[in-house]
Amino acid sequence: MALVVQKFGGSSVANAERIRHVAGLVAKSRRAGHKLVVVVSALGDTTDELIDLAHKITAHPSEREMDMLLSTGEQVSVALLAIAIHQHGVKAISFTGPQVGIITDRFHTKARILDINTSRIRKALAEGNVVIVAGFQGKTVSEEITTLGRGGSDLTAVAIAKALKAKYCEIYTDVDGIFTADPRIVPEARKIDQISYDEILELASLGAKVMHSRSVEVGKKYNVPIYVRNTFRPENRGTLITKETKKMEDIMVSGVALAEDEAKLTIFRVPDKPGVAARIFEKLAKANVNIDMIIQNKSQTNMTDMSFTVFKNELSRALGVLKQAASELGAGDVACDQNIAKVSVVGVGMKSHSGIASRMFAALARKKINIDMISTSEIKISCVIDGKRGKEAVREIHREFELGKKNQKS
Amino acid sequence: MALVVQKFGGSSVANAERIRHVAGLVAKSRRAGHKLVVVVSALGDTTDELIDLAHKITAHPSEREMDMLLSTGEQVSVALLAIAIHQHGVKAISFTGPQVGIITDRFHTKARILDINTSRIRKALAEGNVVIVAGFQGKTVSEEITTLGRGGSDLTAVAIAKALKAKYCEIYTDVDGIFTADPRIVPEARKIDQISYDEILELASLGAKVMHSRSVEVGKKYNVPIYVRNTFRPENRGTLITKETKKMEDIMVSGVALAEDEAKLTIFRVPDKPGVAARIFEKLAKANVNIDMIIQNKSQTNMTDMSFTVFKNELSRALGVLKQAASELGAGDVACDQNIAKVSVVGVGMKSHSGIASRMFAALARKKINIDMISTSEIKISCVIDGKRGKEAVREIHREFELGKKNQKS
Repeated sequence: MALVVQKFGGSSVANAERIRHVAGLVAKSRRAGHKLVVVVSALGDTTDELIDLAHKITAHPSEREMDMLLSTGEQVSVALLAIAIHQHGVKAISFTGPQVGIITDRFHTKARILDINTSRIRKALAEGNVVIVAGFQGKTVSEEITTLGRGGSDLTAVAIAKALKAKYCEIYTDVDGIFTADPRIVPEARKIDQISYDEILELASLGAKVMHSRSVEVGKKYNVPIYVRNTFRPENRGTLITKETKKMEDIMVSGVALAEDEAKLTIFRVPDKPGVAARIFEKLAKANVNIDMIIQNKSQTNMTDMSFTVFKNELSRALGVLKQAASELGAGDVACDQNIAKVSVVGVGMKSHSGIASRMFAALARKKINIDMISTSEIKISCVIDGKRGKEAVREIHREFELGKKNQKS
Repeated sequence: MALVVQKFGGSSVANAERIRHVAGLVAKSRRAGHKLVVVVSALGDTTDELIDLAHKITAHPSEREMDMLLSTGEQVSVALLAIAIHQHGVKAISFTGPQVGIITDRFHTKARILDINTSRIRKALAEGNVVIVAGFQGKTVSEEITTLGRGGSDLTAVAIAKALKAKYCEIYTDVDGIFTADPRIVPEARKIDQISYDEILELASLGAKVMHSRSVEVGKKYNVPIYVRNTFRPENRGTLITKETKKMEDIMVSGVALAEDEAKLTIFRVPDKPGVAARIFEKLAKANVNIDMIIQNKSQTNMTDMSFTVFKNELSRALGVLKQAASELGAGDVACDQNIAKVSVVGVGMKSHSGIASRMFAALARKKINIDMISTSEIKISCVIDGKRGKEAVREIHREFELGKKNQKS
């Protein structure tokens, strides 16, 4: 009689047939004796359709009104799923985020959950219901509807699992779990059975788009075990995301990731004195530009060149800010390279094993792939290379670390 | 600086272009100095599309979940309209029915408004906003989302006008107002400038589908003046619905209506004793069958034939109930005629003028149209005739009372 939270993404409930399929899974879990809270995203492309509708009126709609608009998507899903679950003779009741007391801050379109008042969920569970909650949404203390931004439904699920002290949280999606590399690039890529929060956090920010970082961070903070599973192959065990275990340390590299959505910006001949970098990145932060890797190369006395990567969709904003900053600081030109790829290896085993970096560089060298930028963390090594050679690099690194084999050691 | 409530129906906000048009009207009213509450229905066919979606899952979805589902339609509209009004530089804020404290009873899909807590609307008005409220929806005291059933958005608008003591309530639709007859049937039909609540109530139940009876009843009860106006011809004054005035009494007949959506049921040889009719109609009421006209004809000693009309979409339900009742009561056969039409004339002037009925019957006689059933009220006369001759009858009666001419006297 464990309490379990299940979350189904938009592709899992894209139409009536899929909603019926999901209802069957939920009913089966319920019959197995679980108490269930089910979090649902908006049907298929509903959210994008609603955004298009607003953009037909104006390019810059009010964020408060966008939250009013977009929160309807999940409300449609929860009602339909409840109706479909009833067909199995299983009691179910749907709620919006505001109805179940998901309290957020006032930052419309990207609100953060402050608190969950679980009394209404607990009451409905006690009455024998499968409780279906609209993902991605909440309300402020003054009863304004808010949405949680990208990955918001995952966040709702993990936060509810934490608030209810659920045994685990299942994230149902349209893939079998998390892989050692993207199987479309590396055919021999293998599904990972268990992985740590930290590795997923590195993988997510590196382009493995299975789960959004914010929900993994919450899972990590409150130690909520998360299963990533395939809605359409429920017999598959999926990938379990947990805190780091002793066993994981034996695995040096968990996966290889490729990011092709970044661009590199360089600002030349920046005066080399304290506070300059801070001023540049302060301006970029104010313009809401996310920075990934940063490299600084001293090129001549009192001058330095500085490079960093940003997402391509924020590139024009970043360029504008950077050009202004360059002129204010008396720096030189600003250059931009969109033809880059970032390959990364991730693994908690790196902490206790040496030689990972050199093996990765050697693999790239074998293919005569030049490394443009390098960045490392405790459990990750990333290299920026020529944009056209990303997939080839991933395949060679995957082979180097024998990731296609189960429980590879070194 | 009058406070005015404006309501825009689904066809008025069917797409982005129309929403922009409505936003223009609202902005113009606001600039004219009015304080405005705007009630909006779901976009075009949204509600039907949501119902179809639910019916793809099951023919009999839970009513509570249908309310969750359908209430999203109006929420989409209010957000989009707020966004469109902002483009005119006019402050506007949208709310769901639950957010503005529209409290209803617990009867999902057909809830009744119990109370409106106007504090949130008043606060938003005081801050200079056009307040946009989702029609058709409310919540119970235990925070369950409800919908108000057919004509629910009109009801929201009139109820808010009453609660806020608005100067009047404007119902914007896709026709110029209320006509002496359906212009598609009677080309010379004339728009009525002013009409009483009671006449509209009779017209509405007789097939003139401009406004739903429930909202007119609320308007009548609390004396809220209602303007019916055309969204796409706002320069037109529309029809004003008010309490009866002295001037109205001079007009014997205000309009002619045709209903072709009814069927006639007859139960033969019912035992002619007290309580029998009560038992029959009690059973029909329990089965939620709406009865319109009732006629009883004593056919032989101790036996009576009884006929009545029901809506065609409730016919099969009514037939089932009636056949069972007939066998329980020891009555004879049950017959059903779907090929009927009901023509009606309405006018408060009837109270003080005689001869209306005979002129109506004479008009039908001229066309050799046989009258099957007759029913009258203080301000209405209805005749059931051959279903194929309804339109012809309406035209002849309209001509008889010279309704195409302004201020016809007798």
